[in-house]
Amino acid sequence: MSNKPVDHQDHHEAIETVRHLIKGIDTAMLTTVTSEGLVSRPMKTQEVEFDGDLWFLTKKDTNKYDELKDNPEVNVSYVGKSYVSVRGRAELVTSPEKVKEFWNAAYAKFLDTTPEDPNLVLIKVEPDTVEYWETGSISKMAQRFFHKLTGKGKEDVNLNSTVKL
Amino acid sequence: MSNKPVDHQDHHEAIETVRHLIKGIDTAMLTTVTSEGLVSRPMKTQEVEFDGDLWFLTKKDTNKYDELKDNPEVNVSYVGKSYVSVRGRAELVTSPEKVKEFWNAAYAKFLDTTPEDPNLVLIKVEPDTVEYWETGSISKMAQRFFHKLTGKGKEDVNLNSTVKL
Repeated sequence: MSNKPVDHQDHHEAIETVRHLIKGIDTAMLTTVTSEGLVSRPMKTQEVEFDGDLWFLTKKDTNKYDELKDNPEVNVSYVGKSYVSVRGRAELVTSPEKVKEFWNAAYAKFLDTTPEDPNLVLIKVEPDTVEYWETGSISKMAQRFFHKLTGKGKEDVNLNSTVKL
Repeated sequence: MSNKPVDHQDHHEAIETVRHLIKGIDTAMLTTVTSEGLVSRPMKTQEVEFDGDLWFLTKKDTNKYDELKDNPEVNVSYVGKSYVSVRGRAELVTSPEKVKEFWNAAYAKFLDTTPEDPNLVLIKVEPDTVEYWETGSISKMAQRFFHKLTGKGKEDVNLNSTVKL
């Protein structure tokens, strides 16, 4: 936890805004760093409501598992009514309890397994900065930043920075 | 150019396939490496037909210009009927002729300038590997790789690799 006081109102608002931005987008693109460069792949998003961390489900025998062990820096992007970029770090979590919490029928089909599969692993992404561009205007898109969304870092939540694209 | 013979049939097919995959998707997410981590942002895609390289238009006074000068590794992802991931390297090209070639009315609005603006710069992405996932099936998505799409690298075009997601 941060030693600095966190503005809970702003923190709450930031979570709410991101929850709204990504709601209903059932697939995100997860970008990882490999020895060859940057690769991305579609990931089924969680049905459990966003509360500050993003959770994805995968298997240990995948390239992304190895890539994340080597380099946890990731970007998660969402394309929907807005374009959302989440910069953060991924943590690989082996937890049968968490798997059950996030499990739903879509994963059974998508991953072709059951929630008891010991090969399952969760990717927990702690957002560092969330940026989004609204698509209401065909000309310039508004861009907003959320720094240290979770309030765990050295910066407080910042809802107000707006920069030109 | 490669010293190795390139299979022009496969090369041509790969270009055609990628052209088809990204056709009509007017915004892509461009991911770059920064000192803080991976960031992505929406980029208006070219209207000129894809011929092996991806071209984007931006300005020199942007974060992405500085980021690409520091580290040219990028990922470009397209979300449409399929999910497409392009791993490659970006080159910053200052060329009034190329700007005019790619210019269209949407850029005038989006970048709020004219094609004569000396601040304009093109981002040319040479794809190294293109992967895509088809979304026809709700269960598993087919993934295909195109290695060294342009045939300029050490590997030839490979249309046949298919791996499980």
